[in-house]
Amino acid sequence: MSKTNQGNFFEDFMLGQIIEHPTARTITDADASLYIALTGSRFSLFCNEHYAKQLGFTRQPLDNFLVFNIAFGKTVQDVSLNAVANLGYAELQFYLPTYCGDTLSVVSEVIGLKENSNGKTGIVYVHSKAFNQHGHLVLSWKRWVMVHKRIQGMHNTFAVEPQLQSSVTLSDISVPDSFNSTHYDTSISGEKFLFADYEKGEWIDHVDGLTIDHSEHTMATKLYQNSAKVHFNHHQMVNSPHHQRLVYGGHIISLCRTISHNGLANALWLAAINAGAHTNPTYAGDTIYAATQVVDTFDKGLGFGVLRLRTVGFKNIEWRDIKDSVTFDENGKKSYHPQVVLDLDYSVIIAK
Amino acid sequence: MSKTNQGNFFEDFMLGQIIEHPTARTITDADASLYIALTGSRFSLFCNEHYAKQLGFTRQPLDNFLVFNIAFGKTVQDVSLNAVANLGYAELQFYLPTYCGDTLSVVSEVIGLKENSNGKTGIVYVHSKAFNQHGHLVLSWKRWVMVHKRIQGMHNTFAVEPQLQSSVTLSDISVPDSFNSTHYDTSISGEKFLFADYEKGEWIDHVDGLTIDHSEHTMATKLYQNSAKVHFNHHQMVNSPHHQRLVYGGHIISLCRTISHNGLANALWLAAINAGAHTNPTYAGDTIYAATQVVDTFDKGLGFGVLRLRTVGFKNIEWRDIKDSVTFDENGKKSYHPQVVLDLDYSVIIAK
Amino acid sequence: MSKTNQGNFFEDFMLGQIIEHPTARTITDADASLYIALTGSRFSLFCNEHYAKQLGFTRQPLDNFLVFNIAFGKTVQDVSLNAVANLGYAELQFYLPTYCGDTLSVVSEVIGLKENSNGKTGIVYVHSKAFNQHGHLVLSWKRWVMVHKRIQGMHNTFAVEPQLQSSVTLSDISVPDSFNSTHYDTSISGEKFLFADYEKGEWIDHVDGLTIDHSEHTMATKLYQNSAKVHFNHHQMVNSPHHQRLVYGGHIISLCRTISHNGLANALWLAAINAGAHTNPTYAGDTIYAATQVVDTFDKGLGFGVLRLRTVGFKNIEWRDIKDSVTFDENGKKSYHPQVVLDLDYSVIIAK
Repeated sequence: MSKTNQGNFFEDFMLGQIIEHPTARTITDADASLYIALTGSRFSLFCNEHYAKQLGFTRQPLDNFLVFNIAFGKTVQDVSLNAVANLGYAELQFYLPTYCGDTLSVVSEVIGLKENSNGKTGIVYVHSKAFNQHGHLVLSWKRWVMVHKRIQGMHNTFAVEPQLQSSVTLSDISVPDSFNSTHYDTSISGEKFLFADYEKGEWIDHVDGLTIDHSEHTMATKLYQNSAKVHFNHHQMVNSPHHQRLVYGGHIISLCRTISHNGLANALWLAAINAGAHTNPTYAGDTIYAATQVVDTFDKGLGFGVLRLRTVGFKNIEWRDIKDSVTFDENGKKSYHPQVVLDLDYSVIIAK
Repeated sequence: MSKTNQGNFFEDFMLGQIIEHPTARTITDADASLYIALTGSRFSLFCNEHYAKQLGFTRQPLDNFLVFNIAFGKTVQDVSLNAVANLGYAELQFYLPTYCGDTLSVVSEVIGLKENSNGKTGIVYVHSKAFNQHGHLVLSWKRWVMVHKRIQGMHNTFAVEPQLQSSVTLSDISVPDSFNSTHYDTSISGEKFLFADYEKGEWIDHVDGLTIDHSEHTMATKLYQNSAKVHFNHHQMVNSPHHQRLVYGGHIISLCRTISHNGLANALWLAAINAGAHTNPTYAGDTIYAATQVVDTFDKGLGFGVLRLRTVGFKNIEWRDIKDSVTFDENGKKSYHPQVVLDLDYSVIIAK
Repeated sequence: MSKTNQGNFFEDFMLGQIIEHPTARTITDADASLYIALTGSRFSLFCNEHYAKQLGFTRQPLDNFLVFNIAFGKTVQDVSLNAVANLGYAELQFYLPTYCGDTLSVVSEVIGLKENSNGKTGIVYVHSKAFNQHGHLVLSWKRWVMVHKRIQGMHNTFAVEPQLQSSVTLSDISVPDSFNSTHYDTSISGEKFLFADYEKGEWIDHVDGLTIDHSEHTMATKLYQNSAKVHFNHHQMVNSPHHQRLVYGGHIISLCRTISHNGLANALWLAAINAGAHTNPTYAGDTIYAATQVVDTFDKGLGFGVLRLRTVGFKNIEWRDIKDSVTFDENGKKSYHPQVVLDLDYSVIIAK
């Protein structure tokens, strides 16, 4: 009997199955510094202890996207090692800050299963929850992936597709307990724009481009202990349709968030991801740009507002040249421009 | 008189000479995170504080191979800056865990010297010991390197070759003091295989491949403060027979250990390296695979067993295509397949 | 109105203007480890807690050049995002050590403005000061950059060029308060050369070469949160005269300092940068070498001396082949050899 994990196939998942993901991880300040080195992130809340304290945090919390990527990485071995594609995210919500020294463990429940009519693949829906060492829920999310079948052909007699909310309700979004904006000071972020300055419908071109190199994206993905082969094994990928390794989608999300600092520097706290799709592959050598539309705004009271944002990431092209063709019709079906790599709908907390 | 160190030549070593290596190093959690980012290691003992405490450690110790690579790096400047080749390791043994904040210093004794008949090089055998800030022995090992001579020709009237044990005796292997397996929980590693599940003689194909890129291997080697020029200086190496920089062998060991997690996830603690050889060079762009044979097993009592393992690392080829030709006869002499890069014989502690 | 910062143009600066740079940064041990991984630095003071304490420090301080690069990075967004070129540094002085946990914020004053006769660019002189969380001055420096104008043509009626000292006076150089050399031990650095061993005028060839790769220089620059586009955006730079990304000059300084360990291992503390120029661009793939001339020596009393050093960095050529042509006359004007990339005049504290 083989001792190595070849990953789960579609037939290995059962509706209602609870998966306790192995290799829980203690996160440290070192992960925070590495995250800065790997992405270039400059959001002050995560790298300035005194500022974080001024805003009511115990000390600087870990960047939400760092926490998400580490938590997500835990699920790969069980859920998506044999994934054909990560189809989407929904209902991601942050409940608590994570601090240096916290240990995250992740549990997933299979909430949907659906065979594809080609008999070769199926779609698995999971609801994943990350807890800290005190057993408190830190974040949760749903995602669905297309997974290979062990044996071809149609076998299941039923399909269960979960109802997914199109967004986390703005009023449900939680602000970290002690977070307060009484002493909010825009000179710390270097940008003067606060909640009231953002208008529903406006687009922000974040201007800056970041080129991805091999060691950087593989180091980020290894830091998250995400072991999906498509990111690491050139020898195998050279024979794939991509002819090379793929950049992990979570790294693209992190880079777009970094780029969005220029125009959203006060959008400090990621509260929710409403929906997300990796619309085209990214490779080493690609330069990532991003633009953001303000989808909705909600006054949270107590000095905070929520911005629902749609950040679009695109590669090797500037916003002025792609803004009118992000999506288009292809045989009556909505498609993405081939250089659009990310379409992320998320909600952030911002001071008023 | 030149102020720069050009490295020691064969004539500079004396039998019995004690070398106190400079630049002792304080190791921190940051080194642990970087090690994860550089190798992708997922062994729980080293990245999960709560699990480490459950197993009787003060907190998560530093990965044995990180500690070895840092300790080894200290010896390079004095021992192997002019090395033609690192010929082998033997009798490496770990005595104590290293924790964040510990400062390691390394001392070597010259235990053997032998001129080569070509009159150009000689072999230097050293016994190196790494101590922590309390003066306690953390690990020790022997290695031998082929070193250039300052002046060609045969000069020594004697050759001293130390007797090296073919392995650290299984019963001599030490388990860290407080280490206990009473609460050992395989759900934390994600693999159910413990001591009794491994059979003498069986091979484990670790399946996953990791491609090495330039910044990753040079950053690992710089983190270890290993200053051997062959890893860093493209301008010089382009005129060498390799035409490019060589990947540091210790990085290959680390990658093979990472890859071996898939099938050996409970083999938590490295107790000894019995023998090791870097059998072929590795370059940026190569994809490393690994397979492991269980050479021997030994019941240590108190809930632990020792597995003596032989991990073979190979590049740009999968196990199924190389397993019958790892070694072969070349003119009556045992040789390695040109894609085999590592043959490492080591012993690990595993729960029963 | 655009929400994104496009950087300041020449017209945006006013004489006497005070700029409080955003995104102050808490520095941790993780930054120190990353600095070692990115540069290969081996100076003991910064990586050996016990040695640092022996020399009178609270614990290991952060490497001066790491601190400088982080502080410098803070000024880029406001001062040099639209820089054509970083023309020079002067009067950099370190006043206090920085320790793990310290938070640095940076303030700059515009001390000079001068339009260029082409009507397209101007020179901005700034005096920058970095403070820790206690409001204590950690370091200060002056630099001048050539910046694009928003509107072409000559507009200013005056030019103010500040008087810059050609060097920080040797007697003004401050030694960190508690720093004492009573227990100075050359076996820790591995080099026996102290203050009295260095002679005015002598050159030291540091021998070792370090090749720069893409992820390493971009990760270093991102760690410093330096967002200058020329280092990160291949898609734009491919159409520039460079046809590729430029390596950040501060990374070159760090590499030359690392290389200079071989011959200057006891030159522990950077006290001042008297003058500095990035004389030619550096690209990924280049191999950096360095040589240092002892410009001046000054006995500081209390066990310390100051060495004023001139370190020249050059690429893809060894010292023996470039030492007679570092600078030359081009049409009666002093020019640099096209492979010289750095000319740095600085002062270090060294034990007697």
